[in-house]
Amino acid sequence: MIAQIKKWDYFELPLNATVEGNPFLDVDLAVDFRFKNRTIRVDGFYDGDNIFKARLMPDAIGMWHYETRSNIDELNGITGELECTAPSATNHGPVRVVDACHFAYEDGTPYHPVGTTCYVWNHQGDALEEQTLKTLESAPFNKMRMCVFPKRYVFNKNEPPFYPFEGEVTKEWEESLLDNYRAVAPPDFWDFSRFNPEYFQHLEERILNLRDMNIEADIIIFHPYDFGGWGFDRMPADVNDRYLKYLVARIASFRNVWWSFANEYDLMLDRTIADWDHYFKLVQELDPYDHLRSNHNCREFYDHGKPWVTHCSIQHGDITKVPMWLEQYKKPVVIDECGYEGDISRAWGSLTAEELVARHWLGFAAGGYVGHGETYNNDEEILWWSKGGELHGESPARLQFLRDIIEDVPAPGLFPVHRQSEVGRRIIDGHYNGITAGHNGDDYLLVYFWMHQQHHKEFNLPQDKSYKIDIIDTWNMTITPFADNVSGRIKVEIPRQKYMAVRIQRV
Amino acid sequence: MIAQIKKWDYFELPLNATVEGNPFLDVDLAVDFRFKNRTIRVDGFYDGDNIFKARLMPDAIGMWHYETRSNIDELNGITGELECTAPSATNHGPVRVVDACHFAYEDGTPYHPVGTTCYVWNHQGDALEEQTLKTLESAPFNKMRMCVFPKRYVFNKNEPPFYPFEGEVTKEWEESLLDNYRAVAPPDFWDFSRFNPEYFQHLEERILNLRDMNIEADIIIFHPYDFGGWGFDRMPADVNDRYLKYLVARIASFRNVWWSFANEYDLMLDRTIADWDHYFKLVQELDPYDHLRSNHNCREFYDHGKPWVTHCSIQHGDITKVPMWLEQYKKPVVIDECGYEGDISRAWGSLTAEELVARHWLGFAAGGYVGHGETYNNDEEILWWSKGGELHGESPARLQFLRDIIEDVPAPGLFPVHRQSEVGRRIIDGHYNGITAGHNGDDYLLVYFWMHQQHHKEFNLPQDKSYKIDIIDTWNMTITPFADNVSGRIKVEIPRQKYMAVRIQRV
Repeated sequence: MIAQIKKWDYFELPLNATVEGNPFLDVDLAVDFRFKNRTIRVDGFYDGDNIFKARLMPDAIGMWHYETRSNIDELNGITGELECTAPSATNHGPVRVVDACHFAYEDGTPYHPVGTTCYVWNHQGDALEEQTLKTLESAPFNKMRMCVFPKRYVFNKNEPPFYPFEGEVTKEWEESLLDNYRAVAPPDFWDFSRFNPEYFQHLEERILNLRDMNIEADIIIFHPYDFGGWGFDRMPADVNDRYLKYLVARIASFRNVWWSFANEYDLMLDRTIADWDHYFKLVQELDPYDHLRSNHNCREFYDHGKPWVTHCSIQHGDITKVPMWLEQYKKPVVIDECGYEGDISRAWGSLTAEELVARHWLGFAAGGYVGHGETYNNDEEILWWSKGGELHGESPARLQFLRDIIEDVPAPGLFPVHRQSEVGRRIIDGHYNGITAGHNGDDYLLVYFWMHQQHHKEFNLPQDKSYKIDIIDTWNMTITPFADNVSGRIKVEIPRQKYMAVRIQRV
Repeated sequence: MIAQIKKWDYFELPLNATVEGNPFLDVDLAVDFRFKNRTIRVDGFYDGDNIFKARLMPDAIGMWHYETRSNIDELNGITGELECTAPSATNHGPVRVVDACHFAYEDGTPYHPVGTTCYVWNHQGDALEEQTLKTLESAPFNKMRMCVFPKRYVFNKNEPPFYPFEGEVTKEWEESLLDNYRAVAPPDFWDFSRFNPEYFQHLEERILNLRDMNIEADIIIFHPYDFGGWGFDRMPADVNDRYLKYLVARIASFRNVWWSFANEYDLMLDRTIADWDHYFKLVQELDPYDHLRSNHNCREFYDHGKPWVTHCSIQHGDITKVPMWLEQYKKPVVIDECGYEGDISRAWGSLTAEELVARHWLGFAAGGYVGHGETYNNDEEILWWSKGGELHGESPARLQFLRDIIEDVPAPGLFPVHRQSEVGRRIIDGHYNGITAGHNGDDYLLVYFWMHQQHHKEFNLPQDKSYKIDIIDTWNMTITPFADNVSGRIKVEIPRQKYMAVRIQRV
């Protein structure tokens, strides 16, 4: 019987082979998947227990044929076929960049990232991980930033259930870390030549859980929050490359994967910019599906202008710079980190919900995207930002409200309207535009007033078109119709309150 | 009988003389006032009706002798004396810069500017002007920014009751302005060689009204909001110099005068930096009392590092830069304009009270000073920011609360505490200091958390001293004692709210 795989789901080809030596190092396996005259070559990987696997995300409906290639006879020249069938209604394919500064799924459905961050939710054991998934069911988020590697940091003292390599953390090492937390060399108890398949199987399970909820998995490949404790932040260069290849072979076939090369790449002091360029180029070469790629900063941006960067992944607190970044990079701007709603003793983790929601509106109403995180103190040290669990804040409901508004914008999304632009000059009174974005000239305008409580705002709408105007209270989540079927000069009166917005839609 | 003048009040010497020709141009008059071996030379001025005057602000108690000098015999060689007596209890002298970055009255009493702006309140006729004074009686302000010249601008369409020069606005000119608002040359109906004494007498009356309420008058000498309508923004260079000399001769003897060379100097496009330098140096030379001098910007700062600038007068919306400016200029930082509480259709005039109060706290809690203004729409177009009248906003009460707290700080005031400073490292947990200023190392600390709602903050107070700790809610204006007579390591729990501050005072 021929396997049937829905478009953009993944097909898995398991192959048995008993290998002398190290199956991770000594076996080359690739599979050519052919659809009509097009062939996609994917790398296979060793998954333990004498099983090798190769995975395909088919992107065309119809028959696919495959043939394996290996330096091991047992794995070479195996052929077969699969049938790719229509995708399910909720499966729109991987996310791509469209119209320079926005995103859409491969089937053309617009995608507007409303992301959150639970850096190591996938390293917390099943009980907490399932609670996180439960929380996500009713949360507004459609993207999750998460790390491949576990994390050592404030509020993150626990060991993970699995480790990515064969080996065992020794008692001596753990004790030595108490005195010397910031180790220089990686510990010697890992066999970096042997991945732990169970570790990656678990990662995959969690990525697929997200996929099934239509949540993109923004996979953080490297991060500095290890300080040599496990040493995954200071592996030899050849191990890093092997790790990238293994990771791509395993998860590139999952349509919801994005590659985030690091969190705060610039805190990984032993890496040069050339190292990061190399990782990008290597993954770009290895990944048959060209998943989205970016690199998240602490202070200095990685150069998002480089051709292998698909979008800007930014940490920054000044969201008013979004139009400048859009202009500079001509790529989607995603502020994955602008501070978190919470009350811990850190500047980045003690924003009011109000401030976090305002930062989201500042970004979205300028044609960019902003991400959420939550850091409320609790005795169990389970902070959403890192471990997941439950949400306690007031921002998620407001972000759902914002998401609904943004998903209502004509495709592909909003573009900033500058005071000096044609629309800015022609339609909006030139004195102060608020934070403004629009679509297709004069089809749609969204004006966010932030802490400005303007008594009114004048617009000069085209005479030959008809518009509907709403007043939006972004904090109290109300949309109040102001006028319908209007055109020409109109004075929109606005309640004297902060966090108001005006929406103008062509009818 | 010998005139008795209280210290830092002013003595006026009126002299009669009938002059052929132009008394403004043709008469030189100066008076040497001698106290013991010290002589202050002041310029006289023509005040109309054949009366010349010279004024002195005596700064030492005892007998002063004077002798006039003039190119007119009638005015030359007149001698006399006056007795300077002790100042009244509320008269502390002119304001000076102390300890590089702060102010104090000449008698040493600390002065912390909590300013407001009513640009042309003094050009509105007596009814409104008296209402403004009435409002100021119960307002928190001890400094007023105000213009010598009238203003043409949005919400400012009225002609002033007086003009500074002889002449009359012609009907033709007024009508021509309708079509050609931005005139190039000044109109030809002023006799720039003849000041209108009545105009300046009125200005003086208003400055003295403020003086009697202990409000410093930050006198704006030039401004661009004329657009050639009256042409006071484009007078010939010799007229500008004569105007400066006349103004100094008239009002330098008023102890509450500050010289603000312009509002938004960089919008006066016909002036070069050399022009501004010249005005500063001329006034510095003419003013016997060395009143405070600065120059207010729109975008680019005038270089506050120049030796004749006594303090920074700044327009800027990002108050977090205060520590940087203090470090850069080593002079007091006064953000005279950071936006106004109001609801007009301008970014600068539509801040919520909450935002304006937060900007004040950001500045004061970093060792700087921030100023107020109010711009609420009303049918009469009487906006406090320009015409005075009544206050409608919610910020003034909070600024009084802030002023009370700042006036309670040990002299001379607060200095920013950086994370990396000794106090920052030693006393305050290094992760996030909030906006912090202190006094004399560890005598006093004020930490403002802005939109950060930290659950707690740890301090490590010196063991050998004793402290009192209060939690301040800067918006709701409450001060809640947290601990008394404490020292050493202490965890201060803070209500989960925005706009909180912690004050630590040595007891």
